[in-house]
Amino acid sequence: MSLITRGLRVCYGSSLPAIALTSTANKFRPFCRTYSVTQKQVPKKMAAERTLPQIFKFVDKNAESYKALLKEAVAIPSVSCDPKYRDDCVRMVHWMQDKLQEVGASTELRDVGYQTIDDKQIKLPPVLIGSLGNVPTKNTICVYGHLDVQPALKSDGWETEPFDLQERNGKLYGRGSTDDKGPVLGWLHAINAYKGIGEELPVNLKFIFECMEESGSEGLDELLMEKLKPEGFFDNVDYVCISDNYWLGTTKPCITYGLRGISYYFLEVECAKMDLHSGVYGGTVHEAMSDLIYLMNTLVDKDGKILITDVYKSVAPLVESEKKLYNSIDFDPEAYRQSIAAHKLAHNGVKEQLLMHRWRYPSLSLHGIEGAAFQPGAKTVIPGKVIGKFSIRIVPNQEPEEIEQLVFDYINKKWAERGSPNKMRITAQSGRAWTENPNHPHYQAAARATKLIYQTDPDMSREGGSIPVTITLQEASSRNVLLLPMGAGDDMAHSQNEKLNVRNYIEGIKLFAAYLYEVGILPK
Amino acid sequence: MSLITRGLRVCYGSSLPAIALTSTANKFRPFCRTYSVTQKQVPKKMAAERTLPQIFKFVDKNAESYKALLKEAVAIPSVSCDPKYRDDCVRMVHWMQDKLQEVGASTELRDVGYQTIDDKQIKLPPVLIGSLGNVPTKNTICVYGHLDVQPALKSDGWETEPFDLQERNGKLYGRGSTDDKGPVLGWLHAINAYKGIGEELPVNLKFIFECMEESGSEGLDELLMEKLKPEGFFDNVDYVCISDNYWLGTTKPCITYGLRGISYYFLEVECAKMDLHSGVYGGTVHEAMSDLIYLMNTLVDKDGKILITDVYKSVAPLVESEKKLYNSIDFDPEAYRQSIAAHKLAHNGVKEQLLMHRWRYPSLSLHGIEGAAFQPGAKTVIPGKVIGKFSIRIVPNQEPEEIEQLVFDYINKKWAERGSPNKMRITAQSGRAWTENPNHPHYQAAARATKLIYQTDPDMSREGGSIPVTITLQEASSRNVLLLPMGAGDDMAHSQNEKLNVRNYIEGIKLFAAYLYEVGILPK
Repeated sequence: MSLITRGLRVCYGSSLPAIALTSTANKFRPFCRTYSVTQKQVPKKMAAERTLPQIFKFVDKNAESYKALLKEAVAIPSVSCDPKYRDDCVRMVHWMQDKLQEVGASTELRDVGYQTIDDKQIKLPPVLIGSLGNVPTKNTICVYGHLDVQPALKSDGWETEPFDLQERNGKLYGRGSTDDKGPVLGWLHAINAYKGIGEELPVNLKFIFECMEESGSEGLDELLMEKLKPEGFFDNVDYVCISDNYWLGTTKPCITYGLRGISYYFLEVECAKMDLHSGVYGGTVHEAMSDLIYLMNTLVDKDGKILITDVYKSVAPLVESEKKLYNSIDFDPEAYRQSIAAHKLAHNGVKEQLLMHRWRYPSLSLHGIEGAAFQPGAKTVIPGKVIGKFSIRIVPNQEPEEIEQLVFDYINKKWAERGSPNKMRITAQSGRAWTENPNHPHYQAAARATKLIYQTDPDMSREGGSIPVTITLQEASSRNVLLLPMGAGDDMAHSQNEKLNVRNYIEGIKLFAAYLYEVGILPK
Repeated sequence: MSLITRGLRVCYGSSLPAIALTSTANKFRPFCRTYSVTQKQVPKKMAAERTLPQIFKFVDKNAESYKALLKEAVAIPSVSCDPKYRDDCVRMVHWMQDKLQEVGASTELRDVGYQTIDDKQIKLPPVLIGSLGNVPTKNTICVYGHLDVQPALKSDGWETEPFDLQERNGKLYGRGSTDDKGPVLGWLHAINAYKGIGEELPVNLKFIFECMEESGSEGLDELLMEKLKPEGFFDNVDYVCISDNYWLGTTKPCITYGLRGISYYFLEVECAKMDLHSGVYGGTVHEAMSDLIYLMNTLVDKDGKILITDVYKSVAPLVESEKKLYNSIDFDPEAYRQSIAAHKLAHNGVKEQLLMHRWRYPSLSLHGIEGAAFQPGAKTVIPGKVIGKFSIRIVPNQEPEEIEQLVFDYINKKWAERGSPNKMRITAQSGRAWTENPNHPHYQAAARATKLIYQTDPDMSREGGSIPVTITLQEASSRNVLLLPMGAGDDMAHSQNEKLNVRNYIEGIKLFAAYLYEVGILPK
């Protein structure tokens, strides 16, 4: 899941022609290179009672090769935020293209232009587009995933080398294991399992795999809305599925029908054109830092209540039927608290309150300050210009434009009260919240598949985070979008020691196979 | 001048034997390698009216070679805070040792052990000790300077390569030009000028040149107090002179008799054992950042008034005689304001108030936050642990221990009022303020020398910054310590585009030569 909203992002190079790069087609390798598979005659119809148990058996038998392939993927440090890894990102996309071709998909690489970093134009990695099957009687699922990862260094506090997948105590540790290389490979393995037992795929598949998700998915919106949609890519798509989030806890599966949006703010105060020596200038300037700290202190109280005037006004009211939903959700506040070693949770640790404040109420976080001292040690400059960063996770019925205006008005009011002679400026970038109807047949199909694998009804859950591409895919396809998580709630995506449980990986592959089956039998 | 206090610094390796490294003695090179000099018979007595004008002429004639040598020194990137430049620091010390030997000084390199960075033991650069002349009838001056510099990258906003000294419009741009390589070389050139005209030096000299000043002078206090002092290094020292600060403005010279001290604080708040995804956790934890911002906001108001209870109580009272001193100081608030492009200065820009708040009143600056997002872009983590950095420049009569206790008490009180369940911790490191008597004969000698060069009485000034070694040298030698600045107030030490005016460099060399002469005629 991305940390970055794509609201007001500027896309560079979007006017460049989208050249379909198919030059890796000649790198096609036979399917059995990675897996041990016997190709059989594919029957026209499947019987659920025969097909899925065979597939599950096949998956169990091939577990080690699935781990080996994930190790290969994790070993490519496709860190998207740092241009020095850009070649690795491109390599990662090509690697995945080979894999998709090995399972029989036709693929193309779509150029999405350039990004600008420090006034330099840096080429974006291409987006991998694929297609497998085109049988008019079958449903078509469009699968999205991302191949890039957050940065990771062993010195950040990893117990193992982050780009060398290691199995310990039933867990696969490595950057990207759960976010999002494991789930992306899960689709590959599920397809492979059908092939492995000689069964035809129950659906047609379309793929969109990008390598800039952790850095704002630059270029993707334009590709989806201005190229793929007009070209008819989504015309025969019936359902959209994204596996890029996590279970709520560590034991019970869930299917996700809602995400919060995000409204991100850059609050800039400037007192001088350069940093100043605090010995020489201290006592003679109105320091930008104290103004910024003052403003940041007006935003939220110690219990997390947002202090911005009217910010809760448009939040969708809590109705009795929704309220009841939270009671049945499997969520252990104490385990949650312990997993992060917090002394005490907000809202006195009451389960329903915690869930509602993760999913259906906005939250405001102060992220940091750009331009101030951040290094260890005793730096003593007076920063000349500082940019405070904070964001509000916004929720259904809160429109980004409305929230931005409330924040701007509030900050302007507080700034006037401060009466500082310094310069202040605030800018925002925002993305909307998203929800779907969890009673849609697509969700019911996924729920049946989940129950088959985990022998329990999944929680229909929402997420506090934001995956902006969800909304874009919903808009581009006009179809029902579903988030089908593979990993567990303690996978620590983006943190040190990111992992994917072996169980979640292997059962997740079975889940994807069962989901393909269940969607396959939905009426066309 | 250093940005770092050395108050509670831990010195690693201080139990190691201080081995005198004299292995570079065989690298002695003849004096005329860099300068064009004719060696003459040295007369026993000098006549001021003859000697100094000759010296000034010699200095003017050799100006280009002085610039060339500074270019050579600046080209060694002796950045002390970053271990990857440690070899350059060592190279810089050796380079300077060669230069001292070329003017006839005996030298040794003193080992000061190790520093610890990220649990690694890193060898400190040696301290260069030197001695030139040992005539019992002459006064002996101990000169201190530093050979290390602050970091600098062209991409920080330099207009030229920081480690390639460039002359433009009468200014020598380069990292270390004014802080402190120019002044250190100034001593060398002043000695050289006496030699150049065939005159005997009017004083004996002792040298202490270190290469860790910008990083807390690690190991130096112990060397001075536990090795050099017991060994008798300071026994025949009569005066101590440091040239490591700047004129108040850009036109009038000054001599500095006071420095503020510093009390530096690390204010830590922890809410979780790791950084958290603000989408997933936002709304459910008491965030450390909002607690820290709250605490930092209680420290100082927008006008720079420190809010810590009783912090002004022990400040030395302002007496009428001192108050009058500020009237005559040459200081232009408008030029000062324009040089930093501030919209408005504190204290309504009133000259005397600005000077007093730089020199004789404490100031508090908020420097930044470690552990929070600091990069450009829209990072959205909730930091698990954050360390706020702030410091108070302390002034005469304020004792570090007293100020630290006031800060601790105040923060504890504010923390109790906050009522947060998070963990809070505050630590400090401090160094005392320093003042000397500006009417001391040593100061009068320096004033006469200054007037001779600049045809004006220098301002007797204080500095808002802190040079902790000043106090150590005062304690180690029990002698009068004087700060004799070479550079101008707009030299931008530590900032981008650091420079030394050609005039300040060349006239500064003459000033040092005249100062040696004036101290030479002080009664022994």
